[in-house]
Amino acid sequence: MSFNRLLRFVPKGDDSKVLIGEPVDSQVDVGAAVRKGEDVEVNVYSGTSVLDAGSPTGNKATIGRILSPVTAQEAGTIRCIGLNYKKHAEEAKMSIPEIPTLFLKPATALADPYPAPTLIPKHTIESDSADYESELAIVIGKDCKNVSEQDALDYVLGYTASNDISSRASQFAQTQWCYSKGFDGSCPIGPVLVSKEVVGDNVGGLRLRGLKNGKVVQESSLTDLIFSVQQIVSFLSQGTTLPKGTVIITGTPAGVGFARNPKELLHDGDEFVVEILPHIGSLYNVMKNEQ
Amino acid sequence: MSFNRLLRFVPKGDDSKVLIGEPVDSQVDVGAAVRKGEDVEVNVYSGTSVLDAGSPTGNKATIGRILSPVTAQEAGTIRCIGLNYKKHAEEAKMSIPEIPTLFLKPATALADPYPAPTLIPKHTIESDSADYESELAIVIGKDCKNVSEQDALDYVLGYTASNDISSRASQFAQTQWCYSKGFDGSCPIGPVLVSKEVVGDNVGGLRLRGLKNGKVVQESSLTDLIFSVQQIVSFLSQGTTLPKGTVIITGTPAGVGFARNPKELLHDGDEFVVEILPHIGSLYNVMKNEQ
Repeated sequence: MSFNRLLRFVPKGDDSKVLIGEPVDSQVDVGAAVRKGEDVEVNVYSGTSVLDAGSPTGNKATIGRILSPVTAQEAGTIRCIGLNYKKHAEEAKMSIPEIPTLFLKPATALADPYPAPTLIPKHTIESDSADYESELAIVIGKDCKNVSEQDALDYVLGYTASNDISSRASQFAQTQWCYSKGFDGSCPIGPVLVSKEVVGDNVGGLRLRGLKNGKVVQESSLTDLIFSVQQIVSFLSQGTTLPKGTVIITGTPAGVGFARNPKELLHDGDEFVVEILPHIGSLYNVMKNEQ
Repeated sequence: MSFNRLLRFVPKGDDSKVLIGEPVDSQVDVGAAVRKGEDVEVNVYSGTSVLDAGSPTGNKATIGRILSPVTAQEAGTIRCIGLNYKKHAEEAKMSIPEIPTLFLKPATALADPYPAPTLIPKHTIESDSADYESELAIVIGKDCKNVSEQDALDYVLGYTASNDISSRASQFAQTQWCYSKGFDGSCPIGPVLVSKEVVGDNVGGLRLRGLKNGKVVQESSLTDLIFSVQQIVSFLSQGTTLPKGTVIITGTPAGVGFARNPKELLHDGDEFVVEILPHIGSLYNVMKNEQ
């Protein structure tokens, strides 16, 4: 299987279908184009999953709705690295960790890009503490256990963008982070899965930004990562199978909402964009209060 | 669907089958009997999952191998409550929490009772820090979200025993517990799923013990729980869907291995039993070093 940038989508005019494919324009930022209402043409692949995409069928389709590149069922339990950027560890007043800090989100947290709404749970509305965390996500391409750092990239399929939506009031009310970061839809990912071959051996060439209602609130080169992709995959696989499809989100840079002055928390109607360039593009989400 | 005590098993003499059923002898401790090599007869049900067991077929079978009552796929991400017994919070030198402390294990942690081996990962062998935590497990019977404490039991299918196998060296090396408690097979559950109707509205009537190589190392009434089953299910369901099949392990009482003097850690060949009486019986596991 060979691809550059895969996406999973519902085609325009046929809500009953889910397709896999590659944008015809290799440069288009799919998330941004869809948000603007522009038509994005896709070369459709033969497979029904980005984990087994098959090959181009020769057919084309226009995106109606973008979906997360892997499904919640394919992703299973989501792996999340905390405190993986030096400047974010500083703003959160945490010491630089010596080993990766792991927390998990249930599969039900996985969510689609805009136009799917990103729900703020009732108690997080009440505590006014919904926050964003712009992150690079790794997708595992084959089952992996006890792999070395040297071999780790053999098991990586590619990369996408993600947002680790967090309820800060809940987070600060207990030592463990799983409750406050595990709500339904708290892990949107997308828009495209970029193959590891396109990104190359080192993700340091990528630049990540977080934009709240168009204002840049996070901005970092991926060279600021404390633990590399190879270190993370190897570490997480010790004693633990990372099944094909596993999503690993790799931590967020400085600039999260609760640590800013004044705070920049998320409210009903706010738009948040996680942009990773080049290649991956922009993950758009619009917040909506849970009823 | 009505049952008292369901189990999932491979019948004696036919390794290709997996059956669901209820022990013929309503009093037998299935785990203990299988460990002693005794034959346990089961009234076979028509279903292939304890989540949809159907009804008795009239056929009988003898247990060859006991499996976890729910599969890893049915369980999905495992919910774990930390610090839910007052005396354990004291021995771990943690303050009594005001809300439940949640951490998660990936679905790959779910494991079968003896004779399936319980692996100690390589780095946990090296750090000599494998430990047990005897726990009552809740199994959710239908999808549940934003439920009140009053309605919570409507969503509970039943209860079983579990062991939250932990790598203490990894646990104390980071603030989050997911890495140190998420290894493959670190959450054996079983042997039987006891229906909530059998246990009744209050689990306080159950008594839990942990036995290492036959020696009692943990012993508590379930009345010592800080957060009740109703409180836990309601809390975890806020903003978060608990899908049918979800396993929630409810915390361990005092007496864990690292906190004892001298320590009682787990090594290759050690047998550990989580016994919950009446009804549930004994979850046997025998430790094996990962090769």
